[in-house]
Amino acid sequence: MSYLTLITDFGLVDFACGLLHGVIASIAPEVEVVDLCHEIPRHDILSAALLLDRSIDYFPSGTVHVVVVDPGVGTQRRAIAAQLGSQYFVGPDNGVLTYAYKRYSSKENPVRVVNLSQRQYWLPEVSSIFHGRDILAPVGAHLAGGIPLSDMGAEIDDPVFLDVPYPVISEGCIEGQIIHIDRFGNLSSNIQMSHIPPHTRKTQLRILIGGHEIRGISGTFADGVSGNLLALIDSTSHLAICVANGNAAHLLHGVVGSPIYVYY
Amino acid sequence: MSYLTLITDFGLVDFACGLLHGVIASIAPEVEVVDLCHEIPRHDILSAALLLDRSIDYFPSGTVHVVVVDPGVGTQRRAIAAQLGSQYFVGPDNGVLTYAYKRYSSKENPVRVVNLSQRQYWLPEVSSIFHGRDILAPVGAHLAGGIPLSDMGAEIDDPVFLDVPYPVISEGCIEGQIIHIDRFGNLSSNIQMSHIPPHTRKTQLRILIGGHEIRGISGTFADGVSGNLLALIDSTSHLAICVANGNAAHLLHGVVGSPIYVYY
Amino acid sequence: MSYLTLITDFGLVDFACGLLHGVIASIAPEVEVVDLCHEIPRHDILSAALLLDRSIDYFPSGTVHVVVVDPGVGTQRRAIAAQLGSQYFVGPDNGVLTYAYKRYSSKENPVRVVNLSQRQYWLPEVSSIFHGRDILAPVGAHLAGGIPLSDMGAEIDDPVFLDVPYPVISEGCIEGQIIHIDRFGNLSSNIQMSHIPPHTRKTQLRILIGGHEIRGISGTFADGVSGNLLALIDSTSHLAICVANGNAAHLLHGVVGSPIYVYY
Repeated sequence: MSYLTLITDFGLVDFACGLLHGVIASIAPEVEVVDLCHEIPRHDILSAALLLDRSIDYFPSGTVHVVVVDPGVGTQRRAIAAQLGSQYFVGPDNGVLTYAYKRYSSKENPVRVVNLSQRQYWLPEVSSIFHGRDILAPVGAHLAGGIPLSDMGAEIDDPVFLDVPYPVISEGCIEGQIIHIDRFGNLSSNIQMSHIPPHTRKTQLRILIGGHEIRGISGTFADGVSGNLLALIDSTSHLAICVANGNAAHLLHGVVGSPIYVYY
Repeated sequence: MSYLTLITDFGLVDFACGLLHGVIASIAPEVEVVDLCHEIPRHDILSAALLLDRSIDYFPSGTVHVVVVDPGVGTQRRAIAAQLGSQYFVGPDNGVLTYAYKRYSSKENPVRVVNLSQRQYWLPEVSSIFHGRDILAPVGAHLAGGIPLSDMGAEIDDPVFLDVPYPVISEGCIEGQIIHIDRFGNLSSNIQMSHIPPHTRKTQLRILIGGHEIRGISGTFADGVSGNLLALIDSTSHLAICVANGNAAHLLHGVVGSPIYVYY
Repeated sequence: MSYLTLITDFGLVDFACGLLHGVIASIAPEVEVVDLCHEIPRHDILSAALLLDRSIDYFPSGTVHVVVVDPGVGTQRRAIAAQLGSQYFVGPDNGVLTYAYKRYSSKENPVRVVNLSQRQYWLPEVSSIFHGRDILAPVGAHLAGGIPLSDMGAEIDDPVFLDVPYPVISEGCIEGQIIHIDRFGNLSSNIQMSHIPPHTRKTQLRILIGGHEIRGISGTFADGVSGNLLALIDSTSHLAICVANGNAAHLLHGVVGSPIYVYY
């Protein structure tokens, strides 16, 4: 059984994501397709890059992740496919691979990127405005069906990267940013658990965000007082700011990019 | 082919439900996953309990239903799995099993509940805030993949039950409550078709709700006058109040918990 | 591997579409189910008809498309199934087949329609208000599982058709209508690429819509000036009106049915 996931900004109101299922089924009927997320905000490459990076390790070896967040569709931007350890990626060369590429490059995994050029793996007719259907999904289906990555095009070493924010770590202070807000208003930062000295986490730590100060990191939502801010290590091992039974984004007027400071 | 369904309050905007698919695929790639509903209102255990009960009979024998509506995640609340006839359940021990447990207990079916304690069926690392990914989905995948329920933990006889409303039936009168409102504003009650004497249904019956009176039970939406209230036996064999081409919840200011009276 | 797609107006908030999955899995567990679209506007038969027609060619031979947009459920309206070339359709006889039937009838493909009457392919109990679950999904599952179309009921030659608008083509002018608006506000018309003389497309052409004039057809979104109107051949080979990085429906107050004129 091989798997292919879809990450798009199509939403579910239209039938665009349904068409991708049809295209993939026609090429590789034995491949199982998972709708990982179709609600990436329109053209929000950064959100898609983050979601991809935070998801892929949970999928079986050999899974192909097709990302269609593609504001430059039809222009000269390249379309690419990549191997990241045992996982595969197909998408536009617009930076959507940034987080996953950087994380995998620091591992002992092969990271290979190819420029999609072999048209025999595309639909016979390619529209100028729906490469997701005509190029990316077909290439993903062929990859999941067993065609080697190297058959899809020549290897490149200059994929486009976004200028993503990483935390600045100095003596006793970490300066980070909010990089994701979930539907419950929980604010997830780019500060990883491993950045924070363990002995300081429970009480000594001070976290500053949006003019508020939080002391220590809680173990669960239930440790908070209803309606009050609390800090947690979220399910992706990043520092997150939440409100027990409430919405931290509303309370703090927090947005993606909001600064967050940890003093220990 | 074995099946696993997901019922969560995650919504589809985030990638949380996608991660569950990845976790399940990694453990039991041959299991078919059905997204039964990801739009349970946040933390609404009662809605999830009702949906579970009204859905499970439509799935093949051996289907595992994983429910992740879990406001107490990370606290001392137990996680449980259960067998209900030929169906299986995995979820937090917070009452989400109430309706299905009570209905199956009155049948000649085995109802068994175990307290999840065998960590070899969980992910190796368990976060304190996402047991859906780290415990419930993995246990569900192992169950659907063929591991016996009894291997997951010791049997218990005291699962948590919600105090769910059942109708009060007296001579000539049934006093019930609205327990579900669908997206079209149709109000479904806890009064079952079997509670109502058949010969009274067509015309004799009077239904009182929100200061309105309805005479008799219609056969289809089309029997109603556009914009007017009508009573129907809904697709789950419960008494429902609808407006032909309209929205009964808006017209009646109806909410979950609204009283409804049937006189016959 | 055989495929079945679902097109409904159920939305994803409720569990109605989940129930269809259960019913299909119980009848034909080996069939792969694709959620093509569950967000057809309530009772909007025309939208469903269009989406069906624009999707089916992307699916493998033998795919069964089950459409549940059924305002007349429970009345005397027939339920039908059809073969369109190598694709199959199941749905109410309310016009939802119009576009696909007319397109396939002009090909050298068999188009056959049967009136569903053989109750052995339905659920044993049929509610008056949820034929999607009780008749249409079961028939679809049996079809996808290999039962011949002719076993489902007698052939008919008078399915219901909607009065759908086709463009009026005269010397130098095409008068069409907007027939679909996607979530990004792109307006898709019933004017096909093949209606427009190729040599005129690039610059000579004048398009009038909502009091605005557009010159020529662009190749991609990126050819437009941000915020300005542009015309494109959309991914279904129809003339569409868009705004680069914007919303054409808002700018033009465009609705389904809005007239559009092409002068060449």
